[in-house]
Amino acid sequence: MKHFILASTSTLFGETYLAYLQPAMNVLYEGVDEIIFIPFARPGGISHDDYTSKAAEAFAQIGVRVRGLHTFDDPATAISNAKGFFTGGGNTFLLVKTLHEQGLMYVLRDAVNNGAPYMGCSAGSNIGGVTMSNTNDMPIVYPSSFDTMGLISFNLNPHYLDPIPGSQHMGETRETRIKEYLTQNTTPVLGLREGSWIYAKGDSLTLEGALSARIFEAGKEPYELPPGSSLANLQ
Amino acid sequence: MKHFILASTSTLFGETYLAYLQPAMNVLYEGVDEIIFIPFARPGGISHDDYTSKAAEAFAQIGVRVRGLHTFDDPATAISNAKGFFTGGGNTFLLVKTLHEQGLMYVLRDAVNNGAPYMGCSAGSNIGGVTMSNTNDMPIVYPSSFDTMGLISFNLNPHYLDPIPGSQHMGETRETRIKEYLTQNTTPVLGLREGSWIYAKGDSLTLEGALSARIFEAGKEPYELPPGSSLANLQ
Repeated sequence: MKHFILASTSTLFGETYLAYLQPAMNVLYEGVDEIIFIPFARPGGISHDDYTSKAAEAFAQIGVRVRGLHTFDDPATAISNAKGFFTGGGNTFLLVKTLHEQGLMYVLRDAVNNGAPYMGCSAGSNIGGVTMSNTNDMPIVYPSSFDTMGLISFNLNPHYLDPIPGSQHMGETRETRIKEYLTQNTTPVLGLREGSWIYAKGDSLTLEGALSARIFEAGKEPYELPPGSSLANLQ
Repeated sequence: MKHFILASTSTLFGETYLAYLQPAMNVLYEGVDEIIFIPFARPGGISHDDYTSKAAEAFAQIGVRVRGLHTFDDPATAISNAKGFFTGGGNTFLLVKTLHEQGLMYVLRDAVNNGAPYMGCSAGSNIGGVTMSNTNDMPIVYPSSFDTMGLISFNLNPHYLDPIPGSQHMGETRETRIKEYLTQNTTPVLGLREGSWIYAKGDSLTLEGALSARIFEAGKEPYELPPGSSLANLQ
């Protein structure tokens, strides 16, 4: 049974790492004593070891041990045998490049589809979509493909931001960028605001958190979906 | 003699398209009566024809005719024979994908290196750098390479934005993103604020406009360069 969380952000303003997600993590990882952490997105260039320590500290609070994927001699076998996963945020291009280079993207997808609980935040959520094409990140490295796990049948835009009223900046708004995507593609995009996450359990797929999400579909005006909405038919 | 402008933005807040650049364009395109416009970045999904009309209207004010690159049967030959170029902003991924697909990126580079005046704005400036890796745009399509013309020996971040004081948004700042780039690459990055442009004439390369630029180099703290500074040694 598929069981995963794809969250907009790891951290809310003024809170500690993963704090707001802890109740949801208690449910997701129930009965799991150890997970694999995927540190490849390296926010701010942090090392794999340091990033894994940061995740381990947060997971210790729910009684789950953490081992970094980079520490295994045979990461593909480690993924296939793992009891659960967490992929942290950072740079999506670096994350996707590393997973494809090591041949791990679809090994991870299969493990999650076979029932190992998965949580992603930000870049770690982007790879739950069909492609990484709606990341906000800078293309600091060139991945061999933008294709990602496709745990869901749409794409995510984490850290979704509404246009800022009165802004004099002439760069594109988030909405403009996603609309440009839909001139070239037909996959729907869900703008996931900070504090929101998607929760999948078996055939159920819902929007969680206190905020609505903004949905972008080709040929339609963007619209809002309230928290608690089913996303099972978005494709 | 190389002669080009790479501008942060086409339009300043409250102004018309290319208005603030008109004095610089008068110098750049002196003696030129027709240029090729490269419309491939398609901001907001605008058609190649409509985008070319918009450029033509602005260039009419300096007495220069405009023809869209998409209208030529043999665009490579057209580029080689052209008297000058302008590449408009929009989505850098779409621009770079189209230029590589049609085998035009290095034909254009050679024409500019051979002396045809070139102006780029935003995405059109990104392709003047070594790679497109410091664009702000969303990866809506997958280019065959991130390599660009390398008219300059560094990369550009157009529409450069300083961190917003007091922001509660947890997405990365522009500075964080560029610093992440420098954990994976050694090419310097110039953060070009709206209203600034780079001007090359022969061996001279300077920062123009009223604002300073922010320079990011591997292993150094970012620093500001005032307007008028030479950029000839940034590499």
